[in-house]
Amino acid sequence: MDQTTVKIMARITARADTVISLRQILRDLVGPSRGEAGCVGYELFQNQDDPVEFVTIEQWSDQAAADAHMSAPHVAAAISKAGELLALPPLIHRFAPVD
Amino acid sequence: MDQTTVKIMARITARADTVISLRQILRDLVGPSRGEAGCVGYELFQNQDDPVEFVTIEQWSDQAAADAHMSAPHVAAAISKAGELLALPPLIHRFAPVD
Repeated sequence: MDQTTVKIMARITARADTVISLRQILRDLVGPSRGEAGCVGYELFQNQDDPVEFVTIEQWSDQAAADAHMSAPHVAAAISKAGELLALPPLIHRFAPVD
Repeated sequence: MDQTTVKIMARITARADTVISLRQILRDLVGPSRGEAGCVGYELFQNQDDPVEFVTIEQWSDQAAADAHMSAPHVAAAISKAGELLALPPLIHRFAPVD
């Protein structure tokens, strides 16, 4: 992986009764996020053993692009809609590759 | 992503005093794991915000290849060495892509 890019993983946890709604909100974020400047990769996954858990695996060209994503209008709208559907606060962290 | 493959993420958490030792054990697993039959991808990352946490993002050609990995000699040896270095039991889950 290009060492100058920024790898982010976000873990987003629904409640049992909000999985379907949250899944749709997160799914709707994929296209607009991939269309952002500096988006190298953006994938959304659902834990098959514990379906309330979603993970995004994101790669951005630099920290500025990752920061811009967090304040993009489609992300702000999703956070607003998703807030009451979450079981836990989202865990969003940068990850460095270990060679 | 090819829908027939199996995506696995493992979260492995060290203690503050075992990060360096565990990192080396996990790093040594990357090459042999990538060399296994059915390994489509195997990446190791360290959480930059919480360096005790490591994540592998793995892709296997099918469930049999993923299962074979868990019983490969190099994995068994690493589990044996890493056991006393862990702060938590490893979390190993299958993840399905959400289109």
